[in-house]
Amino acid sequence: ALVEILDELHPADIADLLEQVSRSERKALITLWGVQLDGAVLSELEERVRDEIVAELPDHVLIQALQELETDDVVYLAEDMDEPQQERILRALDDVDRAAVERSLKYEDYSAGRLMQTEVVVAPEHWTVGNAIDFLRNEEWLPESFYDLIIVSPQMHPIGTVSLGRLMGSARKTRLRELMNEDFRTFRVDQSQEDVAYAFNKYHLISAPVVDADGRLAGVITIDDAMEALEEETEEDLRLLAGVGDEELSDGVFTIARARFVWLVVNLMTAIVAASVIGFFSETIQMHVALASLMPIVASMGGNAGTQTLTVAARALATRKLTASNMTRVIGREGIVGLLNGIGFAVVMGTLSALYFSDHVIGLVIGLAIIGNMVVAGFAGVLVPIGLEKLGVDPALASGTFVTTMTDVFGFFAFLGLATLVLM
Amino acid sequence: ALVEILDELHPADIADLLEQVSRSERKALITLWGVQLDGAVLSELEERVRDEIVAELPDHVLIQALQELETDDVVYLAEDMDEPQQERILRALDDVDRAAVERSLKYEDYSAGRLMQTEVVVAPEHWTVGNAIDFLRNEEWLPESFYDLIIVSPQMHPIGTVSLGRLMGSARKTRLRELMNEDFRTFRVDQSQEDVAYAFNKYHLISAPVVDADGRLAGVITIDDAMEALEEETEEDLRLLAGVGDEELSDGVFTIARARFVWLVVNLMTAIVAASVIGFFSETIQMHVALASLMPIVASMGGNAGTQTLTVAARALATRKLTASNMTRVIGREGIVGLLNGIGFAVVMGTLSALYFSDHVIGLVIGLAIIGNMVVAGFAGVLVPIGLEKLGVDPALASGTFVTTMTDVFGFFAFLGLATLVLM
Ligand SMILES: [Mg+2]
Ligand SMILES: [Mg+2]
Ligand SMILES: [Mg+2]
Ligand SMILES: [Mg+2]
Ligand SMILES: [Mg+2]
Ligand SMILES: [Mg+2]
Ligand SMILES: [Mg+2]
Ligand SMILES: [Mg+2]
Ligand SMILES: [Mg+2]
Ligand SMILES: [Mg+2]
Ligand SMILES: [Mg+2]
Ligand SMILES: [Mg+2]
Ligand SMILES: [Mg+2]
Repeated sequence: ALVEILDELHPADIADLLEQVSRSERKALITLWGVQLDGAVLSELEERVRDEIVAELPDHVLIQALQELETDDVVYLAEDMDEPQQERILRALDDVDRAAVERSLKYEDYSAGRLMQTEVVVAPEHWTVGNAIDFLRNEEWLPESFYDLIIVSPQMHPIGTVSLGRLMGSARKTRLRELMNEDFRTFRVDQSQEDVAYAFNKYHLISAPVVDADGRLAGVITIDDAMEALEEETEEDLRLLAGVGDEELSDGVFTIARARFVWLVVNLMTAIVAASVIGFFSETIQMHVALASLMPIVASMGGNAGTQTLTVAARALATRKLTASNMTRVIGREGIVGLLNGIGFAVVMGTLSALYFSDHVIGLVIGLAIIGNMVVAGFAGVLVPIGLEKLGVDPALASGTFVTTMTDVFGFFAFLGLATLVLM
Repeated sequence: ALVEILDELHPADIADLLEQVSRSERKALITLWGVQLDGAVLSELEERVRDEIVAELPDHVLIQALQELETDDVVYLAEDMDEPQQERILRALDDVDRAAVERSLKYEDYSAGRLMQTEVVVAPEHWTVGNAIDFLRNEEWLPESFYDLIIVSPQMHPIGTVSLGRLMGSARKTRLRELMNEDFRTFRVDQSQEDVAYAFNKYHLISAPVVDADGRLAGVITIDDAMEALEEETEEDLRLLAGVGDEELSDGVFTIARARFVWLVVNLMTAIVAASVIGFFSETIQMHVALASLMPIVASMGGNAGTQTLTVAARALATRKLTASNMTRVIGREGIVGLLNGIGFAVVMGTLSALYFSDHVIGLVIGLAIIGNMVVAGFAGVLVPIGLEKLGVDPALASGTFVTTMTDVFGFFAFLGLATLVLM
C-alpha cells in the first residue's frame, strides 16, 4: 500500500519525503520500494541523502533507475559516485548513452557540457514540416523535454531552430528552412553554468544547442536545468556573503559545525586585528571610558553600510549589470551615498553623544569618525568585489569579511585616534 | 544606421544599453528610434528607466509598442503607470485584450493572476491530434510562448494538458483524451508568485494553467516568467538579509541614500542599545581596560555565527525545506552547533587572552561568554525567522537586525557581567 501511495507522488515530493525522515526510516523505505525506485527521484535528492542512498543501493536497482533518465541526469548522479561504482554503472548503460555520459563527465564541473542532455532532435534544413512530423511520429522514443527542432548542416553544425509551436502552426509542405529562426543562441561545452543560466533568464530561452570546440552540436540545455542552475548560483552568492558553504539541511551536527568553524576562524582573526587597534588606545579609553560604549557604534554603522553596498555590488556583478561602462559612476555614487548618510548619522549621533555625556568634543569626534567610516564603507563595499572579480575570484566570496574588517579597523582607529588627539 | 544596429539586437540587449547610458543620451535614442520602439524592450527595462521612458513617450508610440505584447507583459508595464496614462493606454487596446488586462490588474501584486498571460491555446478532449493540428494551422495568430495544449471541459475547467512534443509524436487519429496528462498542476489566480516560482522549479514545469475562484481557466503562466519571479524572490531575500530595499543600479544618489538611511536608522537604534549595555559596566572597564578590546570579539563571533544560522534558516523556509516535520531537529541542531563551535572558540580565544594578558581569569571569562553567545546565536538564528514566518512576515526581513542585536546585547552583557562578578 505504501508503495502505491509513493507511486502517485511526484518524484520531487518523494525526494522531499526521503530527505525529511530519519536515516533508518529512509533505509526501510528504499528496501520496501526495491527495484521500482524511480531514477527521477534520485536526481531530485539533495547531495548528502543521495550519496547515502546511492552507496547502499544494489547495482541492478541503480542501473534500472538510471536507464530511464536522460543523459544530463545520469551525469548529475554519476559525477558524485566513487570511481569503482561509477565504472560499474556506466558499463551497464547502452553504448550510445555511455559514450555520451563519459564525454560529458570530461567537461568541467558547472560547465554547459555537464548541464546538457545529449538526447536532441535534429533535422536537415531541406526537410518539410510534413517530413519532420512523420519523422517524429515514427520515432519510437522522443526526449521527455523537447521544445525545439534543431536544424543542422550536414557537418552537424546547428544553423537554426524551429519551435514546436511554429512547426505545428505551419502547412505540411513548408520547408524548415523557411520557418527556422537563425538568430538563436548556442553555448560552448566549456562555458560556465552561470553564463548559461544568466542568458536563459535574460533572453527568455526555452532550450539551446550546445556545441563542441569544432562548432558541432554536442547536446541541448533545457530551461528547467538552467532554472536550477540559476537558483544554485544565486543561492551560492547569498551563502558566500553570509559565510556559509554548501551545507544542506539534512547534514549532521558535526559536518555543519566543522564547515562553519572554518568561516568563523577567518572572522576571529579579523576581530583580533580590530581588537588590537583598540588595545593600542587603552590609555585613552581608561581616561575617557565613554569611548568604550561609543566605539562599537562607529564600527557597526560602517559595517552595515559596507554590507549594503557590497550586497548590491556583488549582485550587480553577478547579473552583469555592473560593467565597464557604468563602473566609474557606481563607484562615485557609493562614495557620495556614504558621505551623505555619514553626515546624516554624524549629526544624529554627534548630538546625542554630546548631550548624553555633556561634552561637545566627544560629539565632534564621533561625528567625524562616522563620516569617515561610512565613506570608507561605500568605497570598500564596491571596490572589494570589483577587485576580487578582476582577480578571477567570485566577488561574493570573502568580500563580507574584507569589507567589515576594513570598516572595523578604520572605525576604531579613526574614532580612538581622533579622541586621543583631541582629548589627551 | 543606428536604428538598423538596434534592430539587430535582442530587446534585452537594447534594454541594457538604455539602462547604461545617461538620461540625455537615452532621450536622444528614443526620439531617434521613434515609433519603431519594440514593446519587448520596455518589458525588459528596470523600473526606474522604464518609468522615465514611459512617462515621456507619446501615447501613439506607446500604444503601438504595447499592441505586440502578450497580456502578461502589458500588465507588467501598465501596473506601474499613473492612473490617467493607464486609462488612455488601456482604452487603445482591442476589447478582448483590454478586458483581460483589466481583470489581471485587479489581482494583487505578485500574484499568479498578475504573472499569467491570457493568450492560451485550448482544445476539447474529444478532438483528435489531426483536429488539433488543423486548428493550429488555421489559426492566424498563436501565442509566442506556448508549449502545451490545455484540454478543457465545456465549462472551461482545465482537465488535462498535452505537450506539443507529445502531440507531434502521435498519429493524427489519436484522441487528445488518450494523450493528455491528467496529473498536471494548476495555480489559482490569487496564489503568490513565490509559490508559482517554487513549484515550477521543483516540478520542472514549462507552462501551467491558472484558474479563477470557480476553477475556470483564466490564463497560463510560462516558465520564462516563473524563472524571472524566482530570481526576483531570491534576490529580495538576499537584499532583505543585508538591509537593502529594491533599489536599482541606475537609481540616483539621493534615492539610494534615503532608502539605505532608513535601514541604517534601525541599526543605529540597536547599536545604541548595545552601547548602553556597555555603559552600564563602565567602572569595570575602567579598572580592567583589556575588557574594552576583547568585548567586540565576543559580540562579533556571536553576530557572525547568528548570521550563518539565519541565512540557512531563512533560505530553508523560503525553499520550503524547513517544515513542521524537521523543525525540532533543525532547532536542536543549531543549538548544538552553536555549543560545539562555542567550545572550540572558547578554548582558542580563552587561551590566547590568558596568555596575552597573563591573566587566566580573563581567559575563563571570555571563554564562557563566547560559549553562551554562540548558543544564543544558534537559537536566535533559527527561531527569529521561524517566528517572523509564523507572524506572516517575510523571514528575511529584519531578521538580521534582530539576531545581531540579540548577540550584541547578550555578548556584551555576559562578558562584562561575568567580568564584574569575577574581577571586581
Ligand atoms: Mg527536494
Ligand atoms: Mg537515455
Ligand atoms: Mg553535483
Ligand atoms: Mg534535464
Ligand atoms: Mg535536473
Ligand atoms: Mg558559482
Ligand atoms: Mg557567484
Ligand atoms: Mg536588463
Ligand atoms: Mg495580445
Ligand atoms: Mg510571458
Ligand atoms: Mg515578463
Ligand atoms: Mg517576496
Ligand atoms: Mg522572500
